[in-house]
Amino acid sequence: MALLMVRYGEIALKGKNLRMFTRQLRRNIRAALRKNGIAGEVREEDRRIYVETDQPEAALPVLQRVFGIVSISQVAEVPRDLEAMKAEALRMAAQFGLGPQHTFRTEARRADKSFPLTSPEINYQVGGAVKEAFGPTVRLKGPADFILGIEVRRDRVLMFSDILAGPGGLPIPVSGRVVALMSGGIDSPVAAWMMMKRGCGVIPLHFTQGTVETEKALENCEVLAQYSYGWEMRPIVLSHAEVLEPTLRKLYQLGAGRWTCVFCKRLMLQEAVRIAKELDAQAVVMGDSLGQVASQTLDNIEVISWGIEKPILRPLIGMDKTEVTALARRIGTFDVSTRASAPCRYLPAEPITRASLGKFRELLAQLEAME
Amino acid sequence: MALLMVRYGEIALKGKNLRMFTRQLRRNIRAALRKNGIAGEVREEDRRIYVETDQPEAALPVLQRVFGIVSISQVAEVPRDLEAMKAEALRMAAQFGLGPQHTFRTEARRADKSFPLTSPEINYQVGGAVKEAFGPTVRLKGPADFILGIEVRRDRVLMFSDILAGPGGLPIPVSGRVVALMSGGIDSPVAAWMMMKRGCGVIPLHFTQGTVETEKALENCEVLAQYSYGWEMRPIVLSHAEVLEPTLRKLYQLGAGRWTCVFCKRLMLQEAVRIAKELDAQAVVMGDSLGQVASQTLDNIEVISWGIEKPILRPLIGMDKTEVTALARRIGTFDVSTRASAPCRYLPAEPITRASLGKFRELLAQLEAME
Repeated sequence: MALLMVRYGEIALKGKNLRMFTRQLRRNIRAALRKNGIAGEVREEDRRIYVETDQPEAALPVLQRVFGIVSISQVAEVPRDLEAMKAEALRMAAQFGLGPQHTFRTEARRADKSFPLTSPEINYQVGGAVKEAFGPTVRLKGPADFILGIEVRRDRVLMFSDILAGPGGLPIPVSGRVVALMSGGIDSPVAAWMMMKRGCGVIPLHFTQGTVETEKALENCEVLAQYSYGWEMRPIVLSHAEVLEPTLRKLYQLGAGRWTCVFCKRLMLQEAVRIAKELDAQAVVMGDSLGQVASQTLDNIEVISWGIEKPILRPLIGMDKTEVTALARRIGTFDVSTRASAPCRYLPAEPITRASLGKFRELLAQLEAME
Repeated sequence: MALLMVRYGEIALKGKNLRMFTRQLRRNIRAALRKNGIAGEVREEDRRIYVETDQPEAALPVLQRVFGIVSISQVAEVPRDLEAMKAEALRMAAQFGLGPQHTFRTEARRADKSFPLTSPEINYQVGGAVKEAFGPTVRLKGPADFILGIEVRRDRVLMFSDILAGPGGLPIPVSGRVVALMSGGIDSPVAAWMMMKRGCGVIPLHFTQGTVETEKALENCEVLAQYSYGWEMRPIVLSHAEVLEPTLRKLYQLGAGRWTCVFCKRLMLQEAVRIAKELDAQAVVMGDSLGQVASQTLDNIEVISWGIEKPILRPLIGMDKTEVTALARRIGTFDVSTRASAPCRYLPAEPITRASLGKFRELLAQLEAME
């Protein structure tokens, strides 16, 4: 049986909400293990969550996808006895292959202050034994090759040497629900993932024009579902032909083909708001990044957002394409997003880049007159 | 005289806008040098911008704050002659202190294809001379200790070994103008900076309640101005007492003190929209990050944004506090933001966290009735 120690950070700051947050986090960890077929016991003690499992190698990458987790360590449990701590320290150092070429320190912490030795005394004793046996250079601050953590608890001592980063953020769905527009491209899954990281349950909304892009969008939803514990992602697929095309065709009839993208995005937002109201979601998420393509201008964003009844969250708005792409690779959506794509049939040769609200409202009136 | 080579990335993708973007970037580089008292000639050639200056050490950190720049190298100019290239390569390797313990490669590129040797041939010849003289291990891919860049131009060859990262993004103000709410805290300057990075000219808007926070906000505007070439930042300071307090006092009279923060933020957004219209700006920027403090909930965001007539950009909405803080340190606003602060006198003990639109509109009606 292996024991994994899970640290949570930001949510510890939440004062009276703390209990609700950690309960959701424990629940999500259990769901993550279950969904990935890993048996494990989850419990909390002294502001840490512990996972007991006989499949630690399988559990670690899963836990690295549970939002709210700051870091994870596999820990050894030893009795509250200095000699036992020294013996375990020597075993871990030997396993690491510690030698004179390495830098090293111990970091002791007493969760139980009744233990007779202080943290510096533990560091001195245990660290001294390791130094004597393996001859590493002691480095008390900054990065070191081998850092040995020692946590003294009421009934035992926990020791660990590896700290794996978790994804950070907040446990889903403590922040509420959002509807996320989802295309087959790079940006929208990253935008949805960022809001998931901040604790949102995401309802993906895709408009299908054919199988190529829709398969990509749905595959990316499956990748995102690997991060969505505590919330089941159920993508909604609407028909491009039914919802969007009548307006796009009319725009071409009006000789305003350059406006299709602006109207299309706005219609998608309106549908998203309708669904948000139905499903009790409080905002809409989209992957806009300012200036990344010619049509993502402030002018267009103003027209597209005009009169939309729910807040529009654009987590990528201040990011460079290189940053979004790097994140897509890390999340695991990049390969799907960059597969061969089927461009929209209504894409004009030169989409409008400086949409004006005045002209937009004129077109809106003309469209209504055509009903 | 030293020569600096400036690479720009994303803006090279802009097709027909390319010329406008690079003109703005050259203009901003000139403004940056001038504002920092550095003499320098700026010109463009073969999709690179060159800065000729006798103060390269002073110019480099300035250029690292000009948005649109991807990277910068100090370059040596040599004649289009293989022996001259070898001699310069040996000189640069000696200056670096290259030895058998290092990994190394050359990266040749021909902007002028009429040069008789191909890029692989140049690498083979020049790299071979360095290998023979200093004995480093050749590593053709991935990170290496010493990478020697060689660019063959029409009239000369440019050689460089250091590549400094620029800030990326787009040259200000190609994306337009935004009004950015600016407090004395950590988040709002980072939010403004991210939109500056995406090419926005920022108009900071601060509501003053006293000197402590206002000095912090204005000092942070000065830090941000160090990145704002091509756009002069002119902070607007409005009176908290005049614009916001009458409403906040009435809320307390109505027994709705828990609602002050929600109404205050909304009033600030409304003022920001008024100013945006006056100054021809197209959006409002704020530093909200979902769930970071108890009042930054989706419910509150919905109420605060309700009926605001310009798009609200929240570049931090999907970021963790640790990420925002790291960015604040990098930008240089962290120290000012974390100085002792003067909390708002109207801050309720328990700000509302789940504002409902219905209750909000009720309060709005009651406030109007009190006029």
